[in-house]
Amino acid sequence: MVVFVEASVMDDTHLDQFSNFTNIKDKLMTFRDGKDDLTDKIDFIIFFYFNNRYPPVMAFHLGSLGFLTPFRFDNFQDQFNNVLEGNAALTLRSRLRCIIIKNGELEESNKNVKEKEESTNLLVLNEVVVDRGPSPYLSNVDLFLDGKHITNVQGDGSIVSTPTGSTAYAVAAGASMIHPSVPAIMVTPICPHSLSFRPIVVPAGVELKVSVSPDSRNTAWVSFDGRNRQELLHGDSLRVTTSIYPVPSICAQDQISDWFDSLAECLHWNVRKRQKHLDELTDLTHSSSNNDTLDSLEQAELLEKDGS
Amino acid sequence: MVVFVEASVMDDTHLDQFSNFTNIKDKLMTFRDGKDDLTDKIDFIIFFYFNNRYPPVMAFHLGSLGFLTPFRFDNFQDQFNNVLEGNAALTLRSRLRCIIIKNGELEESNKNVKEKEESTNLLVLNEVVVDRGPSPYLSNVDLFLDGKHITNVQGDGSIVSTPTGSTAYAVAAGASMIHPSVPAIMVTPICPHSLSFRPIVVPAGVELKVSVSPDSRNTAWVSFDGRNRQELLHGDSLRVTTSIYPVPSICAQDQISDWFDSLAECLHWNVRKRQKHLDELTDLTHSSSNNDTLDSLEQAELLEKDGS
Amino acid sequence: MVVFVEASVMDDTHLDQFSNFTNIKDKLMTFRDGKDDLTDKIDFIIFFYFNNRYPPVMAFHLGSLGFLTPFRFDNFQDQFNNVLEGNAALTLRSRLRCIIIKNGELEESNKNVKEKEESTNLLVLNEVVVDRGPSPYLSNVDLFLDGKHITNVQGDGSIVSTPTGSTAYAVAAGASMIHPSVPAIMVTPICPHSLSFRPIVVPAGVELKVSVSPDSRNTAWVSFDGRNRQELLHGDSLRVTTSIYPVPSICAQDQISDWFDSLAECLHWNVRKRQKHLDELTDLTHSSSNNDTLDSLEQAELLEKDGS
Amino acid sequence: MVVFVEASVMDDTHLDQFSNFTNIKDKLMTFRDGKDDLTDKIDFIIFFYFNNRYPPVMAFHLGSLGFLTPFRFDNFQDQFNNVLEGNAALTLRSRLRCIIIKNGELEESNKNVKEKEESTNLLVLNEVVVDRGPSPYLSNVDLFLDGKHITNVQGDGSIVSTPTGSTAYAVAAGASMIHPSVPAIMVTPICPHSLSFRPIVVPAGVELKVSVSPDSRNTAWVSFDGRNRQELLHGDSLRVTTSIYPVPSICAQDQISDWFDSLAECLHWNVRKRQKHLDELTDLTHSSSNNDTLDSLEQAELLEKDGS
Repeated sequence: MVVFVEASVMDDTHLDQFSNFTNIKDKLMTFRDGKDDLTDKIDFIIFFYFNNRYPPVMAFHLGSLGFLTPFRFDNFQDQFNNVLEGNAALTLRSRLRCIIIKNGELEESNKNVKEKEESTNLLVLNEVVVDRGPSPYLSNVDLFLDGKHITNVQGDGSIVSTPTGSTAYAVAAGASMIHPSVPAIMVTPICPHSLSFRPIVVPAGVELKVSVSPDSRNTAWVSFDGRNRQELLHGDSLRVTTSIYPVPSICAQDQISDWFDSLAECLHWNVRKRQKHLDELTDLTHSSSNNDTLDSLEQAELLEKDGS
Repeated sequence: MVVFVEASVMDDTHLDQFSNFTNIKDKLMTFRDGKDDLTDKIDFIIFFYFNNRYPPVMAFHLGSLGFLTPFRFDNFQDQFNNVLEGNAALTLRSRLRCIIIKNGELEESNKNVKEKEESTNLLVLNEVVVDRGPSPYLSNVDLFLDGKHITNVQGDGSIVSTPTGSTAYAVAAGASMIHPSVPAIMVTPICPHSLSFRPIVVPAGVELKVSVSPDSRNTAWVSFDGRNRQELLHGDSLRVTTSIYPVPSICAQDQISDWFDSLAECLHWNVRKRQKHLDELTDLTHSSSNNDTLDSLEQAELLEKDGS
Repeated sequence: MVVFVEASVMDDTHLDQFSNFTNIKDKLMTFRDGKDDLTDKIDFIIFFYFNNRYPPVMAFHLGSLGFLTPFRFDNFQDQFNNVLEGNAALTLRSRLRCIIIKNGELEESNKNVKEKEESTNLLVLNEVVVDRGPSPYLSNVDLFLDGKHITNVQGDGSIVSTPTGSTAYAVAAGASMIHPSVPAIMVTPICPHSLSFRPIVVPAGVELKVSVSPDSRNTAWVSFDGRNRQELLHGDSLRVTTSIYPVPSICAQDQISDWFDSLAECLHWNVRKRQKHLDELTDLTHSSSNNDTLDSLEQAELLEKDGS
Repeated sequence: MVVFVEASVMDDTHLDQFSNFTNIKDKLMTFRDGKDDLTDKIDFIIFFYFNNRYPPVMAFHLGSLGFLTPFRFDNFQDQFNNVLEGNAALTLRSRLRCIIIKNGELEESNKNVKEKEESTNLLVLNEVVVDRGPSPYLSNVDLFLDGKHITNVQGDGSIVSTPTGSTAYAVAAGASMIHPSVPAIMVTPICPHSLSFRPIVVPAGVELKVSVSPDSRNTAWVSFDGRNRQELLHGDSLRVTTSIYPVPSICAQDQISDWFDSLAECLHWNVRKRQKHLDELTDLTHSSSNNDTLDSLEQAELLEKDGS
């Protein structure tokens, strides 16, 4: 794999302090914007933005439609022009601002904690997962909302997700699907020990805190959009709020159609073969056998009296 | 049952046009506010408001805690004073504004339809249910959002609910539970024919339309918070939007605590006996047998080799 | 629709006592087996067996595959020969033997009740449903197993099903899917009031009794494979056992393959588009965005620090 | 913790080859059956059986009722006598016989594989779990029944369980609950990628095979009743059948009552506060507000017309 970067990147002294960068620096190829011809040299592009304020994203799918990639690539020029002309709806996808407060830090002054927070916040677009990690034992964590103890979660773990994330891992764990424009945070238990533990949806404005239950034998593990996996020790806490920096995602059609198309395409949500009109004749309880009339009528017999 | 009304009610000429009222008028007892002593005469009180703008409600439970009745009655005087002193948070519970447009009316001028709408809107606090009614056949309806066809629902029916209603009928049908402050509308299928049909949550701002599928053999039935049950014929449509008149519900504690207390009390959400510390030693897969150490250790044996 | 019957049917005096038959008798066409040529005259065939002992059924689907119709019709001759040569596995599909004991009958002698039973048993292949019928109130019934009170069911109703029925109405109500060869009875609540009410599977040998709860304000309604709908009054009871007469269903392939093919075809069970190999690179929590590499890599950015 | 063993254990030369034993041998206390008085010295007892044929187990719960510990301890003497007098029903709890066939072994002769099998079979009473282990990626395994490829499972993993295990980890993952007397094996996906992947129940007689999908980037991890955790590599396979050695579990009451008592006690299955008779008056859709009449009647107002 050959990696091209903008020529200016090589001169950026900020990057020299990162060994990740310096280690590979001399393997990078450069190009000058508007001068070098990269035609047929590029298979795909990675672009990073380093600020919180996220510009609108116009994302194309190369293969099949994705929740975050509504645009088809084949006629990208037309679609691009269309967006530039202003014919574009935006879906503001909320993100969660997460921070782990280590046990010792609670002793520090508020000011220090605040500084710490600013430097270590993680933003997730899908979800933060707290699980039992490699432990064979139940995860056992306490959940707080706006400082109030809400419940105790025992099971494989918990998913704190955005509406965008409700159609990712959370839906696999049984959550309802939430349109990305709904200002909400979803909490979904993973294989909860309690039969009555359903997912809950709370307003975007709350602060969630998750900590290992004092009487839990195990610690827990946290990961952020599947990354930055780390242990949550007794006394540590994970704090989650809605970030003030959503991701503005440009719609290919509109907020509603894009989302429902993705539900059908990615999750096969309520996608069924269109049944024949004849099937309308068969009733609900015969749905297992409603494929032809013969069969349906045969069943009438099965109801015959059992007298000998 | 003896019914008392304010004395002024008997003189209200508007009421005389309702036969429901005139039929029972001479059975009513009256009282004069501030003059008659009703002590020990009243078991419970009914009060009606007739305008859209709903005043804040302070609702007491006489028996056990309810989602809509957070206040305990025993020390009502203190709680009442507390609210009057302004120590009260409000939960604005959204309502759904529903109207059924009959087939023929589509032919009428827009103006007429609008007039019709204004006179026949129904407001629901929990949900509108579209089901198969007395028919033994599957309900088969089309669902539209903001004019776009979203999906087709086959099954026992569909529930269009507020967040308040998400903890009522919808939760029984498998929905996640939504805090009443989340501005959203929930659509929950009832026993859907399709395995992949999960409940969905859409932003409060949309307009939903439900109509009987053209190729459905049956009609459907609609009810509003369990009332006003009526048939939805081919060509008719049910339109649902969020009302601009929510119900301001006074919190006993605060928005968060009241709701979670109700989840625990009314739905037994994640309520479990606190397990003994010893149980923490047993692992996830032994939750069926984690009631004492003897049993847990016994199982070690069950893993012994099977060689004969 | 022109209906042909065997010529002998017209001479069957037993049938003359049924007005359903006599009313249409002179509209029926007849044919003599082996003499009349019915080629091109018959669209489909109905056949009834009137005894409990059910002969093996070889059922063809005319349209798409069904749980009860595993055979394709296009090469029916070959398949028919194959079966006649003995190359055929059987799935014995259990049926439920159901009877409603009316309140007054409990006063009768045991002998009478037994006689009554013999004459009014209903056999169902899919399920017996007890629901609230036209009532807007919760159904509230008591469930007994082998004479012991097991639980109280509040909700839209209950489904008592065979394994065959587990893939019909029960699966829509949330049941797991049971292979028809498992000797079991399934009880599935419909929209239960209690969050913790999961479906249960009990051994085929038990006797279930369902009766309206004494403190229920409503009655309930019972239907048998969607037919014979009738009211279950206070004091009545529905008794259900496994019939000793299963339906032997000839497999097109074998017990396992036929069932799993039907799950995929009829219920779209775990049917998904095969994902591209590239997607394997993306992790679980990115399943909402795993449609192309661009998108997946983009998300790396979303984890950037939130420091200002 | 002081551990007592039978005096004969110290003389058992077989045990001397296990370093686990020799390391602690001189810390063990001994007692002679019928001679030493252990009264007040013993808190709990561990007993191991080493053969496949499992004797009937009479298991007491010291704390609260468990699925595998139906007997109360307080009047153990009476209950013990009762069992000895033959007043005891048995529940035969099936176990799963599991073996991992490593890739290379497929090359070996059948005979060797058979020998290998005999020496390394593991018996589980609850379940075998195949999951993604420490990998952040989806688990991706193929499932075979009686040699036929049935489906592909993508998600956190899969649970292959006995009916006994259906009320353990499987129920947390969404399974229906199966009475231990039903001869069946349950396959439950853990957080499956596909919305339509419901748990399935197959006859006890089948052989299941689980292997890592050839196009999966990851391996999988297997554990047996939560123990013996090991990696399942590409080319390896896990084979599971029903063991011919069930665990005969002595019932405290009978098969049915014991199980349903455990469901209520351990899982809070359908356990609700008994509602007041008055609540029967309120309908289904008002279950969120059915705690007192005041509230229910108040809602009548909410349906008032919305005309301005």
